[in-house]
Amino acid sequence: MPAPSEGIDIAQSILQRLRAGWTSKNSLLCVGLDPVRERLPAAFRSGPDGFRDFCCAIVDATAGEACAFKPQAAHFAAVGAEDQLAEVIAYIHARHPDVPVILDAKRGDIGATAEFYAIEAFQRYGADIVTVNPYLGPESLEPFLAFPDRGVAILCRTSNPGNAWIQCHPEDDPVFLRVARSVAEWNERGNLMLVAGATYPEDMARIRSVAPTVPLLVPGIGAQGGDLRAVLEAGLDARGQGLLISASRSILYAGAGEDFASAAQEAAVKLRDSISRCARDLLRRSA
Amino acid sequence: MPAPSEGIDIAQSILQRLRAGWTSKNSLLCVGLDPVRERLPAAFRSGPDGFRDFCCAIVDATAGEACAFKPQAAHFAAVGAEDQLAEVIAYIHARHPDVPVILDAKRGDIGATAEFYAIEAFQRYGADIVTVNPYLGPESLEPFLAFPDRGVAILCRTSNPGNAWIQCHPEDDPVFLRVARSVAEWNERGNLMLVAGATYPEDMARIRSVAPTVPLLVPGIGAQGGDLRAVLEAGLDARGQGLLISASRSILYAGAGEDFASAAQEAAVKLRDSISRCARDLLRRSA
Repeated sequence: MPAPSEGIDIAQSILQRLRAGWTSKNSLLCVGLDPVRERLPAAFRSGPDGFRDFCCAIVDATAGEACAFKPQAAHFAAVGAEDQLAEVIAYIHARHPDVPVILDAKRGDIGATAEFYAIEAFQRYGADIVTVNPYLGPESLEPFLAFPDRGVAILCRTSNPGNAWIQCHPEDDPVFLRVARSVAEWNERGNLMLVAGATYPEDMARIRSVAPTVPLLVPGIGAQGGDLRAVLEAGLDARGQGLLISASRSILYAGAGEDFASAAQEAAVKLRDSISRCARDLLRRSA
Repeated sequence: MPAPSEGIDIAQSILQRLRAGWTSKNSLLCVGLDPVRERLPAAFRSGPDGFRDFCCAIVDATAGEACAFKPQAAHFAAVGAEDQLAEVIAYIHARHPDVPVILDAKRGDIGATAEFYAIEAFQRYGADIVTVNPYLGPESLEPFLAFPDRGVAILCRTSNPGNAWIQCHPEDDPVFLRVARSVAEWNERGNLMLVAGATYPEDMARIRSVAPTVPLLVPGIGAQGGDLRAVLEAGLDARGQGLLISASRSILYAGAGEDFASAAQEAAVKLRDSISRCARDLLRRSA
């Protein structure tokens, strides 16, 4: 088992890199990389390499607006494009080293198996941060935390309605709040995050109240109908930052022809700007 | 998106194939395929192909004793051996078509992403059954259920102590029982299973009482210390079957030299026989 890289508080660098993006780019926008063959411009449909080339083009087009990139593992795995996923992440590190990469894999297991998932995410793919599922308990998170220079984003309250079945059970002490409280407690090194869907801003506010400094990764704006203003009211931290608002399809497929990259950039600029305007407006009112 | 294969109640065949193994082989033993480079006989350590060749040798050595095989995804993913994982599964289908393959991947996501995970498990890897994590709710299971000829094993009460944090919360109506009750309700086609760790036989008995006919995939015998007799008392269904008791390391690494395959077979025979003897004994007493 390869040893996790030695780190003298390098973990901090994940948060520092996120803060740098939030501040210097004025961006809370996380660009999701979810390639779907039928939605790609024709030139990229020939095979796994098309996935890579499309994603790299999107990366170059939107790096100026992104506080993070979030490739989604299943989209690559379904077509056997694991090598191309690794190449996309290596490309981001080489060309845009300031932008952290979140591998959205939602892994969750225990013992040696969880160690192998951590190796998959951090060594094989070179991700900075990986999303994980907490259902198997703290043991399932530890092997990821053993990499001191990497981050872990733990599913808390996801964006889909059916998750209430487990995440909101029982009403008076819901699982998602247990997760949020524990993660806030465990976050001594500042390298943990929580996944909190844009579709439940009231629950996001409850998460923010028990985890005031933990960055929140927020899916569900756009296609899933989350309300941007409500998300910012609920989720901004005391610095007016602390959110990674994720958008994928609305950016990746903003244009379907040869203009896809410039259309993606335009969509990213527009969304980044709406987010910042709305956040500024809220901060002004609350000042 | 490729359409799930058409099935006139083919789902039933998963259960039928399991029952055939339980009956004709008198076996409740599921052989886990968890290759770890350092533990392999020297001849298999050179690279991903060694993983494949080792697993295929184990498969041939133990197919007569196994009611199912369970390759574990992370072990292959950590070393970039996805193609070899697919080859191992194809090998099992070709040589031992009576033995169902459970891909232990514990995936869990929603919408298009969950569909891609289902495609990964069932089409890319050709698994008969896949393990999934229920934390994201019923939506995360549906795309897997859309494959009518395949099975899904849903994490319920896993074998590690820390899972109580979520799975046993709250005490009077724990998440794991909610999962068990729902899965029993959803199991109209007979293609669902539950994962219930050997380390909590009392909870396994509660699962069995709310899900009397759902097969249980049982990790935690052996290395994790689960007690075989307690598991059988808690988990056998009314036919004296309904369990897939999983063992990996105790079989895979029973021998470390050139005799690894015969040592694995011997270990599998021994465990299969202990299980059957113990089950027969229990059934005799309760008759």
